[in-house]
Amino acid sequence: MKISVVQNILEANQRIAEENRQRFSAHRILAINLMSSPGAGKTSLLERTIQALKGEYQIGVVEGDIQSTYDAERIGKTGAAVVQINTGGACHLDSNMVREALPSLEIQNLDLLFIENVGNLVCPAEFNLGENFKVMILSVAEGDDKPLKYPLMFHESRVLLINKIDLLPFCDCSLGLIEERALQINPQLKIFHLSCRTGEGLKDWVGWLRGQVQKGKDLPS
Amino acid sequence: MKISVVQNILEANQRIAEENRQRFSAHRILAINLMSSPGAGKTSLLERTIQALKGEYQIGVVEGDIQSTYDAERIGKTGAAVVQINTGGACHLDSNMVREALPSLEIQNLDLLFIENVGNLVCPAEFNLGENFKVMILSVAEGDDKPLKYPLMFHESRVLLINKIDLLPFCDCSLGLIEERALQINPQLKIFHLSCRTGEGLKDWVGWLRGQVQKGKDLPS
Repeated sequence: MKISVVQNILEANQRIAEENRQRFSAHRILAINLMSSPGAGKTSLLERTIQALKGEYQIGVVEGDIQSTYDAERIGKTGAAVVQINTGGACHLDSNMVREALPSLEIQNLDLLFIENVGNLVCPAEFNLGENFKVMILSVAEGDDKPLKYPLMFHESRVLLINKIDLLPFCDCSLGLIEERALQINPQLKIFHLSCRTGEGLKDWVGWLRGQVQKGKDLPS
Repeated sequence: MKISVVQNILEANQRIAEENRQRFSAHRILAINLMSSPGAGKTSLLERTIQALKGEYQIGVVEGDIQSTYDAERIGKTGAAVVQINTGGACHLDSNMVREALPSLEIQNLDLLFIENVGNLVCPAEFNLGENFKVMILSVAEGDDKPLKYPLMFHESRVLLINKIDLLPFCDCSLGLIEERALQINPQLKIFHLSCRTGEGLKDWVGWLRGQVQKGKDLPS
């Protein structure tokens, strides 16, 4: 009984995710589902990334939080279009929440859409939102055992951003071990090292992302 | 319909939590539900705390993880009795998982039981496990906005341990802001600052905890 309820929720989620995906595709928008633990640096990454790309692309952000509009206010200051979803207790976004938020964004004008998920290394990985791909952030302060303990998120992500590398000298954390363990779970994972605080490594990530936006635009219509 | 399912789950959880509580109480065990984001330092705190108290008390640990026995192996090395729960995907422990784990611990011999929850700042706060009280850990690397964004966890906890204070000089995080925001949500919150890496501040926490174990033992039978 419990299983069938969960099954229905995931099926409904998948159906609406497909609708979202078709809308993004019709407008040639690259949509990214951004996930991490609380405090790994999702909003800081968005601030830095929007700053680097806002002269080239129209960027929108869907902000997911349990409550508050704190992150949406931070993003609003970058000049990007932003809408806040408050999940009211739920520990992840689902595709219906994203669908309901889209009318606030005039998505026909966008090139790039970030969906910042609720800070949680578990459930967000289970819910397809209609994104092109998932990006996860891991802060080095969280330790190098995270792939062993939260493997689904590493398995589902296209990109792993290892953030706060400026803290490496002060943490018992091995970049090599994170990479080795993450690639064992997902050998296709694209990995970048960066620090949103110092700016180190952001150029590589932004360059790669630019290529992804452009790839979508260059497809024959 | 969805609401009534959730309601039933929480009612069943509450009933079994009450049974767990009575078992802990009958054996005069202080039971603590330990919660935090992934990588905030729950297992490191347990290693340090067990090290400090194992000459005085019999200590048991219930380890909760999505999968793997990595943390249980770390705890096993301290000499404490330990049992691992694998939730198989669930993002929190519930009272039935704890009940099922207890026969592996010979709880009649214990003075102090730690239940290390799944790393998640959202759902664990909603599920009573039968503990005497909840303790949450926040790493300063997570930032000082966490009480604003994950208020329920701060509201439900008796103790807030602010960990990794050795990283404070390298993070944009204000201890004062964390405290102010946490106490606004929960004015009764007992707060300690510490670093499981350097050992700073652990003595105060361990001293307070010793007082709590002793208080339970001194109650008239």
